[in-house]
Order: sequence, then structure tokens, then C-alpha cells
Amino acid sequence: MDSMQDLAEWIAVDWDTSYLRVWMMGPDGLPFAQDSSDKGIASLAQGAFESALLELVDPYLASDHVTPVICTGMVGAREGWLEAPYVATPCAPPSGQSAVTPACTDPRLSVHILPGVKQMSPPDVMRGEAAKIAGVLSSQPDFDGILCLAGTHTKWVHISAGEIVSFQTCITGEIFALLSQQSVLRHTVTSTGWDQGSFLTGVANAMDRPQAFAAQLFGMHAAELLLDTPADAARARLSGLLIGLELAGTKPYWLGRHVAILGVNDVAAHYRIALAEQGIQAEMLESIDFTLAGLTSAYSGYKGANT
Amino acid sequence: MDSMQDLAEWIAVDWDTSYLRVWMMGPDGLPFAQDSSDKGIASLAQGAFESALLELVDPYLASDHVTPVICTGMVGAREGWLEAPYVATPCAPPSGQSAVTPACTDPRLSVHILPGVKQMSPPDVMRGEAAKIAGVLSSQPDFDGILCLAGTHTKWVHISAGEIVSFQTCITGEIFALLSQQSVLRHTVTSTGWDQGSFLTGVANAMDRPQAFAAQLFGMHAAELLLDTPADAARARLSGLLIGLELAGTKPYWLGRHVAILGVNDVAAHYRIALAEQGIQAEMLESIDFTLAGLTSAYSGYKGANT
Repeated sequence: MDSMQDLAEWIAVDWDTSYLRVWMMGPDGLPFAQDSSDKGIASLAQGAFESALLELVDPYLASDHVTPVICTGMVGAREGWLEAPYVATPCAPPSGQSAVTPACTDPRLSVHILPGVKQMSPPDVMRGEAAKIAGVLSSQPDFDGILCLAGTHTKWVHISAGEIVSFQTCITGEIFALLSQQSVLRHTVTSTGWDQGSFLTGVANAMDRPQAFAAQLFGMHAAELLLDTPADAARARLSGLLIGLELAGTKPYWLGRHVAILGVNDVAAHYRIALAEQGIQAEMLESIDFTLAGLTSAYSGYKGANT
Repeated sequence: MDSMQDLAEWIAVDWDTSYLRVWMMGPDGLPFAQDSSDKGIASLAQGAFESALLELVDPYLASDHVTPVICTGMVGAREGWLEAPYVATPCAPPSGQSAVTPACTDPRLSVHILPGVKQMSPPDVMRGEAAKIAGVLSSQPDFDGILCLAGTHTKWVHISAGEIVSFQTCITGEIFALLSQQSVLRHTVTSTGWDQGSFLTGVANAMDRPQAFAAQLFGMHAAELLLDTPADAARARLSGLLIGLELAGTKPYWLGRHVAILGVNDVAAHYRIALAEQGIQAEMLESIDFTLAGLTSAYSGYKGANT
């Protein structure tokens, strides 16, 4: 016997390379339960997606009707559950109506995977970030400016009139992780501490002479050998050089624009500080889970079309 | 009983992070035997250096007198056998007279470790490369111009009047390995093939807009998803972007100068081609082992001072 209180009206899913997160949504539009697992798409073979999902959501499915499940993330990539073809810019963040629906064995499931967004020139792509953008637009429908989605692959997104006009992805965070953990600099960047002055000097050096990047990296190693640079300074300098190089390359995005940074961790704060030095006072968007907000917005579109 | 033919007059040693190479030198100044092992300094604890060396050279040591052993490489680093303090630029490549001598248990050994070279501003260091430079100068004493020592950490070295005037190290090769094998680009750079046009486009793009580096990297990934770029093109483009970024940063070294590239592998050829596009016809130095030539030159200095 189903207890009404335990059943989801619909289920929101953020399914990326290394994780699976689900929210059980009530009739009030809010989640009454949530769960997660490490069954990201990189760990799943074809045919294993439905059972990975059911492991988390089974108890919340009604037995007498289908429950919509709205998914975002790499689950819609070529190597995911079912490829959800990209929508091309300029475009609104993909809604539930443009989702693809993988066939499910369990008759209680109706799964919808949101497409990503592509830009043909210069080539660029996003998937889970599109839901975050939809989430921002659901709370600020008139947002006009630049969203900086700070993370491993930071995305700079120009938003106007409810649409993604253009965007640019920089793999700055990934380069930072590789250099600090696996390059010759792993002996130099040994602290988790932070030195603000070294960060800002790194930003300024890279913006002034972005072409000196590869030499400045070895220079950090040499400075540690010759000058005994403190480890805190090295970590902050490496971050500063990388964020400075990125800011030099994304200047058309942020110069003279309204910028909002989306991110809850230290990285977002580092972007804010670096931009402030360039005279840009960025708005910080960090109070809510924008992926859930975006999935909720997509579900509204789906529901509107199916009722 | 020692057979004269089997004894070394001296022994040349190239001992770096991941390998140990030895040459047994005859009275004619040429090696009559050589050997190597994987006992690089990264694999050796303090106290294990002498035995690692003896494993390779023991049969060639005379029992009634000491045999000089001249070493270059990271064996002279802080984490090596015995730290050989850096000589500061401008300076000639360190000779045998400036070597440090670790204490040995075996009375047949007289070990000499050549110092590295440091530059205080901007900070930079070299160790084994100094012996290579000595080797070049032993065959071209009047060399005046730029040596490009192409490799994992490429060094650009200004040589004049027999001295190292200044130098700059770029960790381009290390970044290439990390990005192609471990970043999001590992799915894009899957071939060992080579596409010259893509390489040259990458060089030109990075020299024109070095600040766009981090965005151009993700652009390669996106281009593969959206445009099905061939894998050969991706590998060459990544190399081109990295070497282009390096050339943009090292322009004061090569622009309008005589450049000689030292290196025997594909990487050296890539630098040659990239420089040729900038109007620099670099000389290729690849016929002999310059490390051995440099150690021989250092031994001559040692011998002159000790006989």
C-alpha cells in the first residue's frame, strides 16, 4: 500500500560524470527527500542506468501511474544513457519539452533527459550548466549580463533576453589540479594555505604577459629552490597565474559588463577578488541550488505541455 | 688480477631523476663500455647511491688506485647524493674543479658531482643541461647565440664568449603530457599520428592570442564533439598551441638570433618547424651525445688541476 506522503510528484536528477543526485519533489514544488550515489556515468555500462536510478528512487514511485523524472548532466552525452542532441546558441536553456526519453523496463518511470547547449563558432558545449542557467533565470528572469559558472571547467555565459547568447569554457581548474598535484610543481605547491598578495601578483603577471605562462610556472619551482618561497605563496601564485591567464582571455566577456559568479566554494571567491582588481564588482550567486531550480523550471514546461 | 683492457681511466656518469647512465672511458678519451640502470635519484634513499653506482662500474675499477668518476644531473640536487651548490649566471658551464665530492666507502672511487647553474632574476635553475652546454662548447667554442634544449622542460639559453649569459625554462612538454593523457582532452588526443597543418595553425593561434590558451583547449574538446576533428589533428593542434605559447613567451630569446636546437626526437623537429614559420632557420645539433662530451670536457679540467 502506498502512503501518499512518501510518493514523489516528480523526481529531479543531476547525473554527471562522477555522481548521481536525486530529489523527490512534493506537490508544493519543494523536495521532501534527497539522495545521492557515486554511480556517475563514467562508472556505468549501457543497460545499467535504469537500475542505478531505481536504487535511489524506487520507494518514492507510485505503483498505479508513471512518475516523471527530469535529468540534467552528462547522462545526456554520447557516452551517457541516451544522447540528448545539443540545442544551438542563441537559445533559451533547454526545457522539458526538448528532452529525450530513454526506454525504461519499469512501467512506473517516465525519464526525460534535458539536452545540452552547443556553440558552433568558436566550438563550445555545456550540459549540466544549462540547468543551472535555467535556475538563475527562474529567479531573475530579466538577468542581462555575464554568468561566470566557476569550477573545474569554468564557463563564461552571456545572457540576454532570457537566452544564452554565447559562452566560453576554460579548463583552468583542471590545469590547476594537474599542475599542483602531478607536475614538477607538486614539490612547490605543498600547502593548502592561501596568500592573497601572491594570488593578486600572479593574476597581474599573467594578465600583463599571458605568453610567459610556461616560463612563470618553472620560475615558481626555481624560486622555491633559490629563495625559499613559502608554500602558501606558491599555491596562491599558481592559482593567480591561471585565473589571470583566463581573465586575459575572457576580457570580451567581463570588461564593462554586469557579472554574476555562481559557485559556493573558494574558487568562486578567487574569481570575485581577481575581477574586483580589474574594477568589476561581481554579484555572488550562492544561496540556492541552481541545478534543482533549473530542473524545477524544466518540469514546469513539461507539465504544462502534458496536462 | 686486473686486465689493463678492462679498466677505466675515468668514468662519466649522467644521473638524473629516473635513470643512471655510465660510460667507461679509455686513455684515448673515448668510452670502451657503457651501461645504465633505472636507479635514478627518485628511487634511491640516502646511503644507497654508492652501491647503485658500483653495480654498474665495479668490474672496471683498478684495485691499486682511485678512479675518478665525474657526475652530472639531479644527483647534485638537494634530494640527490650530495648537494652541489649552483653557480650563478653569467658563468661558464661548471667544470670538474667546481665539483663536490661525496665520501665513498669503497677506496677505489673518487666521485665528483658537477654543480648546476642558477639565475637569480627571473629565478631559474639547471643541472644536467649545463653538461650538455659544455659539450656543445667543446665542439663549438665560439658558439654565440641561443641554444634551445628541447625536452620535457625546454631550456632557452643565451651563450656568448663561452658563458651562459641567461636562460629560461618552459615546462611545455610536461604540460603536453598531462593534458593529453589526463585531462578532458585525453578523449580527444587519442592518436600518435601527426597533422602538420593543424600544428602550424595551433602555433599561429597561440602566438596571436596567448591569453586564449585555456579556452582554446576546451575548444578542441568541443570541436571533436561537434565537428568530428580527426585525432591526428588534435594531437598536433595541442602541441602547436603549447609550442606557440612558449614561442610567444620566449621571443626575446629567439627573435633575430642564431638558434641551435639540441635534441634528437620529434619534439626538436617541432620546434624547428615552428621557428621556421617565424623566419628563424635553426641549426639542429643531434649527431653526438653532448652530455658525454660535456663530462669529458669537465674531466679535462679536473685532470689538468690534479696532475
